[in-house]
Amino acid sequence: MMVEPESIYFQDHMPGNVCFGCGIENQNGLHIQSYWKGEESICLWESEPRYQGWVKIMNGGVLATIIDCHCMGTAMAAAYREEGRLLGSEPYYRYATASIKLDYLKPTPNDYPVTLRAQIVEIKGRRTTLTCQAYSEGEMTVRAEVVAVRVFEGEQERGSPFT
Amino acid sequence: MMVEPESIYFQDHMPGNVCFGCGIENQNGLHIQSYWKGEESICLWESEPRYQGWVKIMNGGVLATIIDCHCMGTAMAAAYREEGRLLGSEPYYRYATASIKLDYLKPTPNDYPVTLRAQIVEIKGRRTTLTCQAYSEGEMTVRAEVVAVRVFEGEQERGSPFT
Repeated sequence: MMVEPESIYFQDHMPGNVCFGCGIENQNGLHIQSYWKGEESICLWESEPRYQGWVKIMNGGVLATIIDCHCMGTAMAAAYREEGRLLGSEPYYRYATASIKLDYLKPTPNDYPVTLRAQIVEIKGRRTTLTCQAYSEGEMTVRAEVVAVRVFEGEQERGSPFT
Repeated sequence: MMVEPESIYFQDHMPGNVCFGCGIENQNGLHIQSYWKGEESICLWESEPRYQGWVKIMNGGVLATIIDCHCMGTAMAAAYREEGRLLGSEPYYRYATASIKLDYLKPTPNDYPVTLRAQIVEIKGRRTTLTCQAYSEGEMTVRAEVVAVRVFEGEQERGSPFT
């Protein structure tokens, strides 16, 4: 496992990222943070009351958002890792979601931290397939399959990949 | 088609709804509004800069959120319609998402209104299957399949279904 020198979080190496779910430059975003733990990527996230779906139950769309962004970050990090490159090195790679399938197994509490665990299933050129699960207090609450596609690779200036 | 006396919007008949996507009692929510147009249900929604994924492109998780909530409202409204009941009449019915599959066909602009169109595929007891599409300026950008399950039916006080 490659240890990043400045930060272990994938999202800290995505300059110019304005994304609601994962953008460090979105003042009103969810600011998820993802990192490697062995072959899996992990995201620990704490919600706010505004993001409930039912009282004290996390909104399913917010869960979709953090799972989606966690998987896009993971697809990016996996590509860098496969090429033996540090995150943030050029050419920049950025991924977008082609499809996501979510099975909501049980309610996810909104007032406890949620943990996401993602696994790379397959990397085929620019297309990366992942699985991801959400856990609350050790119980799996959501299971997802995600297809990410690399839609940007380049040496552009800070911020450019997201404009 | 049944015309509701007070409001055509499904969400106006869900008292106590604190949901981020569709709750009239969530001060910081997305406040989608859904209504019947013949056999389809429609939702017209305008985003904000905070909900972008890339610059001026709508975040995929936010799209998942509004599609999910639009389909839950539609599943509810369809059940009332099937029983010949007005929305808001008791027993209250409320639906939760069992699964959702989203295919992102092309980027959805964040600075134009997005239109959702949902169709009932099947109602089987408490389980309702729907399809839904997002359109921007007339072009389909997202296609979804959604399974909703009725998780609440009762005569409880205002707010109770969501607590």
